[in-house]
Amino acid sequence: MPSPSPHDSLYALIAETADQRLASQLRFVLEVDRLKGIVRQTPLIDGSRNETDAEHTWHLATMAVILAEFADPAVDVTRAIRMILIHDIVEIDAGDTFLYVDAAARAVQAAREAEAADRLFGLLPGQQGAALRALWEEFEAHESADARFARAMDRLQPFLHNVFTDGIGWRRHGVTAGAVRTRMRIIADGSPALHRLVERLIEESVARGYLDEG
Amino acid sequence: MPSPSPHDSLYALIAETADQRLASQLRFVLEVDRLKGIVRQTPLIDGSRNETDAEHTWHLATMAVILAEFADPAVDVTRAIRMILIHDIVEIDAGDTFLYVDAAARAVQAAREAEAADRLFGLLPGQQGAALRALWEEFEAHESADARFARAMDRLQPFLHNVFTDGIGWRRHGVTAGAVRTRMRIIADGSPALHRLVERLIEESVARGYLDEG
Repeated sequence: MPSPSPHDSLYALIAETADQRLASQLRFVLEVDRLKGIVRQTPLIDGSRNETDAEHTWHLATMAVILAEFADPAVDVTRAIRMILIHDIVEIDAGDTFLYVDAAARAVQAAREAEAADRLFGLLPGQQGAALRALWEEFEAHESADARFARAMDRLQPFLHNVFTDGIGWRRHGVTAGAVRTRMRIIADGSPALHRLVERLIEESVARGYLDEG
Repeated sequence: MPSPSPHDSLYALIAETADQRLASQLRFVLEVDRLKGIVRQTPLIDGSRNETDAEHTWHLATMAVILAEFADPAVDVTRAIRMILIHDIVEIDAGDTFLYVDAAARAVQAAREAEAADRLFGLLPGQQGAALRALWEEFEAHESADARFARAMDRLQPFLHNVFTDGIGWRRHGVTAGAVRTRMRIIADGSPALHRLVERLIEESVARGYLDEG
């Protein structure tokens, strides 16, 4: 049983002024603020620090708006954006797993994320929580066109950050071109055109010494 | 004439592999990364630091998904979310203006933001840039229902952060309840129900000493 938050009395006041539904919704809204505290392995383009999950998520959503025309098959960008907005909130409890390392951590990650989804989407009113959880599961399953495009954005963004910071993150972690090619392959499921570009940029990154062939 | 970016040759490679259109779009995508470097006056809920513009923007977009049912008149949430995603990018050039201070700065802010919009939306292919700029202008004009709901989110989020951090930000800047009431009034244009809740929370914040009546 978690100890009561010092702000429980504020939520009680919200329930009394409006209703329990809005109090639950605002509890979710304020809880997911913690996404701003999860630091990723991806450097900002200016190299000054790594980005947070919340910053990453905003960037993906904006990319989905800008690059929607490259989705193939075509997608409902609105659904892809909604999916993106909540795709990482499970990391509030489960933490971020770097794409290229922590293979052991990745093996247990799925279970930790499902628990996190229970807790976080469970803060919302029943139907709304269930609908958003289903959207998160759709993203994870990587089967629908919307999910595939959303995940293409999720792979493309840190890739671009690596290329445009001369491979800082790759070199820090000793990532090889082969590992990048494998990880980037799923971009083709959401956008063959963007995947072709990624392949070319991998080649160029090797030529420039941003990335070791291997 | 700005000096060439060290990454111009990468953009040339993108134009050659794909086309100039995608090169322009990716230049925009990577340029707006700087939104992560703009620090706001709003503390995170855990009080550890202030949030960045990119984090704030993600939070608003997520709130719009969760609280859409409170929009009155009803809105096209999709448009409101798109508006939210790009509403602050002009601050990359023009900086953040705190809601409660810098009245002098606010007076010149509009011109600086229009210049920033010229530069930033101008990075995109013509029609796409014009469409997003129009969306930004719609947000600023505060006339359409979609814009009014988007701006209600933009006012509600830092307000909630102040209430749920026991008024850290308000006390730091000597903000009074009267000033908060005035600034929050426009929430009523997008959602009378959320505005009623805000009024009640202002009262409670004064009672708790988070905010000075005055």
